[in-house]
Amino acid sequence: VSAASAFAQQPDPAIVDLLGGLAYGELSAFDRLAADARLAPTLDGRAHMSAMAAVEMGHYTALAARLGELGVTPVTAMEPFVAAVETFHALTEPSTWLESVVKAYVGDGMAADFYREVAEFVDPGTRALIHGVVADGGRAEFAVREVRAAIGEQPSISGRLALWARRLVGEAISQTQHVLADRDALMLLLMQGTGDLAAVVALIGRITQRQDERMAALGLSH
Amino acid sequence: VSAASAFAQQPDPAIVDLLGGLAYGELSAFDRLAADARLAPTLDGRAHMSAMAAVEMGHYTALAARLGELGVTPVTAMEPFVAAVETFHALTEPSTWLESVVKAYVGDGMAADFYREVAEFVDPGTRALIHGVVADGGRAEFAVREVRAAIGEQPSISGRLALWARRLVGEAISQTQHVLADRDALMLLLMQGTGDLAAVVALIGRITQRQDERMAALGLSH
Repeated sequence: VSAASAFAQQPDPAIVDLLGGLAYGELSAFDRLAADARLAPTLDGRAHMSAMAAVEMGHYTALAARLGELGVTPVTAMEPFVAAVETFHALTEPSTWLESVVKAYVGDGMAADFYREVAEFVDPGTRALIHGVVADGGRAEFAVREVRAAIGEQPSISGRLALWARRLVGEAISQTQHVLADRDALMLLLMQGTGDLAAVVALIGRITQRQDERMAALGLSH
Repeated sequence: VSAASAFAQQPDPAIVDLLGGLAYGELSAFDRLAADARLAPTLDGRAHMSAMAAVEMGHYTALAARLGELGVTPVTAMEPFVAAVETFHALTEPSTWLESVVKAYVGDGMAADFYREVAEFVDPGTRALIHGVVADGGRAEFAVREVRAAIGEQPSISGRLALWARRLVGEAISQTQHVLADRDALMLLLMQGTGDLAAVVALIGRITQRQDERMAALGLSH
């Protein structure tokens, strides 16, 4: 390709969707974690969750910069995903500190697993960026410590937290389906990447398996 | 001093107060900026203020690490300052996006000026840390652009914003006085550092002068 045609080249809409959805997810996670930090029973817990929020903003900045390189304004790329992400958060507003901790771990973990799977189907540069921004950054350890300590003190709360985690999973799946039904390029990437229905089932199986592992780590499995 | 006596040495309480107050100020600024970002009329403005919040968290982490090196837990060092900082924020809750932008710039600017002055009276390591964490990080430019654009569109808002800025200054001074009246070591540092009343007056004059410059930059001076 000549320099002129390379310049005129439009970025792959599936990549723009992937980065835009992820960027809004990070911006929104920042916002929610910052708000949830207020639920912390201690200043230490509050600082910990605030630091997790700040990490999401660092990821957002990296994604926005990449979108800029592709010639797309971050706001344009994010807009198609605002409604679904906000609906997810509105339906999963934590009412206690432990619910917010479980949400930070389970919600973020599931999203990360999904993005890591999709990252397999894109160019190596985008893949590396996605792997970087969905890295856990120590929140698993924090969540596991907080939740296990709380269950240790009061075992009866585990049932309610397990239900809460299942609700998070359900709402996340529901919103992901809505988004995919609306975004043809993203759906196509997923279909072509997986190849056939068996591969889609295997992908869902891997994500479910990792979710079960998180529940076990929290002490919330049966 | 021998290694043993150096080990047993207690950290200077004025330094602990300085770092603790600054640390809680950063944690609290993070929290407020993250909440105020929701007032943004655009996703772009929201991302901008969220990024400013994340920068404060980076500063918090640096201060908490330094307190740790001094053998003080951050929470212990912060606790004496929680009430004053929270009172300041409760009395200066922005009701519009522009008020939040002015607060981010004016409130942060005044605090930074105060800390830079006090940093002159402490050891070089602490001084360098303080200079690093009160660095502006581009928020002046952002605030000036947002406020000037808004005044350009609707000149009548400048009077109300100017009043708002003066209220921020008044509440900041009031809470600083409360804190100093309560923290002997910090007050002593300030008294010994300045040396005499004339120097205190000169310090207040410099801070006032810089505040006037900020008001002029925003287009809010008369």
